[in-house]
Amino acid sequence: MLVVGSIGLDDIETPFDSVKNALGGSTTYISLAASYFTAPVSIVGVVGGDFEQRHIRMLENHNIDLEGLQIVEGAKTFRYGCKYHYDLNARDSLFTHLNVFEHFDPVIPEQKKKSSFVILGNISPALQLKVLDQLTNPKFVVCDTMNFWIEGAKEDLLKVLKRVDVLIINDSEARLLTQQPNLIKAAKIISEMGPKYLIIKKGEHGALLFGDDSIFSAPAYPMEDINDPTGAGDAFAGGFTGYLHKNRDLSFDNLKRAVIYGSVMASFCVEKFSTKGLEDLSYLEIQNRFFEFKELSSF
Amino acid sequence: MLVVGSIGLDDIETPFDSVKNALGGSTTYISLAASYFTAPVSIVGVVGGDFEQRHIRMLENHNIDLEGLQIVEGAKTFRYGCKYHYDLNARDSLFTHLNVFEHFDPVIPEQKKKSSFVILGNISPALQLKVLDQLTNPKFVVCDTMNFWIEGAKEDLLKVLKRVDVLIINDSEARLLTQQPNLIKAAKIISEMGPKYLIIKKGEHGALLFGDDSIFSAPAYPMEDINDPTGAGDAFAGGFTGYLHKNRDLSFDNLKRAVIYGSVMASFCVEKFSTKGLEDLSYLEIQNRFFEFKELSSF
Repeated sequence: MLVVGSIGLDDIETPFDSVKNALGGSTTYISLAASYFTAPVSIVGVVGGDFEQRHIRMLENHNIDLEGLQIVEGAKTFRYGCKYHYDLNARDSLFTHLNVFEHFDPVIPEQKKKSSFVILGNISPALQLKVLDQLTNPKFVVCDTMNFWIEGAKEDLLKVLKRVDVLIINDSEARLLTQQPNLIKAAKIISEMGPKYLIIKKGEHGALLFGDDSIFSAPAYPMEDINDPTGAGDAFAGGFTGYLHKNRDLSFDNLKRAVIYGSVMASFCVEKFSTKGLEDLSYLEIQNRFFEFKELSSF
Repeated sequence: MLVVGSIGLDDIETPFDSVKNALGGSTTYISLAASYFTAPVSIVGVVGGDFEQRHIRMLENHNIDLEGLQIVEGAKTFRYGCKYHYDLNARDSLFTHLNVFEHFDPVIPEQKKKSSFVILGNISPALQLKVLDQLTNPKFVVCDTMNFWIEGAKEDLLKVLKRVDVLIINDSEARLLTQQPNLIKAAKIISEMGPKYLIIKKGEHGALLFGDDSIFSAPAYPMEDINDPTGAGDAFAGGFTGYLHKNRDLSFDNLKRAVIYGSVMASFCVEKFSTKGLEDLSYLEIQNRFFEFKELSSF
């Protein structure tokens, strides 16, 4: 299983607390979440010489394969700062320093080109296409994107969508991509753009899975204390894909369970700042939360 | 089972169609939805001499007991006009003519005072208190309200909440009532205001049931064509309470099923303008949709 996306250092402010210089980036969250289900998870990404060894060790401890991690000595790691509003549903970007990420060329190590399960994290569609072009055996490609690319790189994004199996976006992005306020109609339009399956994340309202002429509605985990929403979507993608990679069952029924495992990992992610919520989970904690989701929605 | 609320004639405009002078009002939608589960459903309400006999006959055909319907000859029925926006989530009120409703005194017929299942439709909390004061044997009282009363009659509303078993409101109303953006926290605060159970309706995102230290998350029915959202909340309350009245099982597990039957009736309601979606349903249609909800959310 291969993950390509960003690795960065984040300054995050919420109304309750803040951290500076904390580990972040889509690849980081995705691979950590996936690491609880399958191994090895291989990543492709770039950091600067300032990227601390303790982060490397933490990722290696999760059996994450760092062969594809480019370390550019003398250069700086991608940095991002944001501030969440009181309701944690909206955030303002404070700064974005691309640094080494500005010239990131996602070169997939020879051995990893034959990866069959691939997650394209939230990077520019042009880079996502570069990754797709290097794959020799893509069986199940999961793609994330965001409003920034929908508005600024739609043409490339549409090319990507023709070549992926699953698109994961949130409800406002689905509406933006289709100009259709009704989510069920928007989902149909997006399915016609290419992806066999579509997952629409709705934050505190759960997620919807579309495909095989079926719809699955996953509940949200009831959370009173969200400490840091950063990375929730990436943790979802990692849990979802990692679970599927483990058992290789791509039936709709198993995709439903994968959506729940994705939601489980997202719920752990937002309980702590940065990647802390994904660093020390036990098998039992993950299973227990899966069954809490079941209890929450079964009737 | 007793229903007290408004009965009116509505002018409704959506971007797709419009109706004038159509049957509406919370009592109407609630009692029609409940009539598919239990009988008789007794109503208390007021209309003017202009209220057409065909509406009376339609309600009677649903075994709705109209003993408590006051008809004020020479006066006009409550009228309301509204216009929905393109996404159907927001509407502008165009006019509100209270007419006979201005001096509505909800007098419960002697025989109906001992009703054990009661729905207080969305009327002023002062009137809801008047109804509560007349009940001799309230076992299960369900209450609806809206932002207008939360902002304008909060003191009376808080008195009502101490005396009801279930409050049904939507997510923005729950936030308004508690000044708390987190819905799970808001639900705890509302539970402390009195009601044993709380249902938060979230429109296209389904509904949450809180109580007995448990939470149930109900999915929304995936709808591409919502023709008229009017009355959806009332249809929900009617289906929910009617189902519970039929089998008198007030366990949390049965309340979950009742929430689904409420959602089923709301989904039928919005498929057609005015009360049309609730006038000619078969037992099989209702059961089939219940199982569609099960399919949609089971994993």
